[in-house]
Amino acid sequence: MTNTVISSKSKDVIIGFDQPFAVIGERINPTGRKLLAEEMKNGDYSRVEADALAQVAAGAHILDVNAGIPLADEPAILAESIRLVQAVTDVPLCIDSSIIAALEAGLEAYEGKALLNSVTGEEERLEAVLPLVKKYGCAVIAISNDDNGISEDINVRFNVAKKIVERAQDHGIPVSDIVVDPLVMPIGAINSAGTQVMELVQRLRKELKVNTTCGASNLSFGLPNRNGLNTAFIAMAIASGMTSAITNPLHAEIMQSIRGANVVMGHDPECSDWIANYRAPAAEGEGRRRRRSRRRG
Amino acid sequence: MTNTVISSKSKDVIIGFDQPFAVIGERINPTGRKLLAEEMKNGDYSRVEADALAQVAAGAHILDVNAGIPLADEPAILAESIRLVQAVTDVPLCIDSSIIAALEAGLEAYEGKALLNSVTGEEERLEAVLPLVKKYGCAVIAISNDDNGISEDINVRFNVAKKIVERAQDHGIPVSDIVVDPLVMPIGAINSAGTQVMELVQRLRKELKVNTTCGASNLSFGLPNRNGLNTAFIAMAIASGMTSAITNPLHAEIMQSIRGANVVMGHDPECSDWIANYRAPAAEGEGRRRRRSRRRG
Repeated sequence: MTNTVISSKSKDVIIGFDQPFAVIGERINPTGRKLLAEEMKNGDYSRVEADALAQVAAGAHILDVNAGIPLADEPAILAESIRLVQAVTDVPLCIDSSIIAALEAGLEAYEGKALLNSVTGEEERLEAVLPLVKKYGCAVIAISNDDNGISEDINVRFNVAKKIVERAQDHGIPVSDIVVDPLVMPIGAINSAGTQVMELVQRLRKELKVNTTCGASNLSFGLPNRNGLNTAFIAMAIASGMTSAITNPLHAEIMQSIRGANVVMGHDPECSDWIANYRAPAAEGEGRRRRRSRRRG
Repeated sequence: MTNTVISSKSKDVIIGFDQPFAVIGERINPTGRKLLAEEMKNGDYSRVEADALAQVAAGAHILDVNAGIPLADEPAILAESIRLVQAVTDVPLCIDSSIIAALEAGLEAYEGKALLNSVTGEEERLEAVLPLVKKYGCAVIAISNDDNGISEDINVRFNVAKKIVERAQDHGIPVSDIVVDPLVMPIGAINSAGTQVMELVQRLRKELKVNTTCGASNLSFGLPNRNGLNTAFIAMAIASGMTSAITNPLHAEIMQSIRGANVVMGHDPECSDWIANYRAPAAEGEGRRRRRSRRRG
């Protein structure tokens, strides 16, 4: 049983084997969102704040914050985004950048124990990111690709994860502060992409005893009805032991699937979270029936 | 790898470890359907035929036929239902009754290799049903309760399934003709109901090498948004190795979850079934975009 604790100034979120699945909201990310990118670049963070509030309202436990805008001052924009998101919500944050200086600026601006996104098995990245993780005492997402790229062989991906965990230990970082992303491939191209993830998650959990995460929506790349497929996949990943995902909590189907999976896993005692979220629609039906019988009466 | 072949006069359906999940349509069942019960009792089978066609159109691979109407001539009604359903559709049937004489009348009326629903571990039931299975060369659903009722202990439920499989072998019935229902309990009452099923399915598959089925909707009994919860559960049961379920294919969410799970399991090569089913909605979106650009052009 491994618990990864991520904190804001006032709140802890536990990613863990016996915990409800942790939803890391992915929306604060200018990649592919031209308007958001333009606004962030011009110092307008109103949409960042609105996205933060909407995702928390929809059930996100942690928010990913990314400021990857070409030709912009990413470290400054990421730090400012993190300051502002912290001001409007109390959920812990995931600091997301491919640029080391931006990760460090984000960590400087953050109050609490962040989740850093991410380290890979690439030598240069390992030696740049792990000292930051140690210095700031944060947790880190470990993506299982290395200097040879992304392998289609799950044994290779497992071994990359193992290497990162071992290297982290060399830096004094406990295994409970590593959350492995086994990498989700598009199943339209690789028919075994789904079973690969399920097998890897089971092995990572059993053999390395690490928590896991993924970008769940990669699976459905190029296919119709992506949400429908992602919905089935995320429940199946949870059944295999996945403990968190970077996803869009504004998709009601995805959140329903995650909440349903929590019930099935026994991680929603008394089904109280399920009932709190879905009582309303049922009550509507009930209400309609009641109203009808009143009319009859 | 175990394949259970169920046939109509002209069509085989394989329930198997490496096959797409088999959907057994549950609608032709007068239990809780007063109007249908009344009609069947009066010799009006129009709704039975309509339910058969609708379920096949929605994606059912096998149709369960039940004629359990209090104070009616169940064997005659079941046999007639089976004759009529066979006349309107070519999918194989699952002959469903708690009355031995009705099972036999159904088997007499059926042309092909039926799935018989069901035998339990109860002594009397075992010795009444297994000879029928052997005589008609059909397959049978084995429900893991016995003379002591339904145990909450999964080891007991596993052992009941094992006993049925062994007894069937004594009767000359191969393990591939047994489809075990590990019993799904309401998770609102038993918090471990979901993990119980997942563990049992894995063990049944690994240790007894049998195919599995369940009444998936039992899980959500008493909870709001039952379809939402069933949707997550069925994908998770498939991830654990469940190979069929008795369910309502008219619920689009459930069928989407099953089709999505087939993709994730690698049982929908090239995602062709997924694309065939969900291209339409995507094309609508595409179409809208195309129309808009035409207006612009």
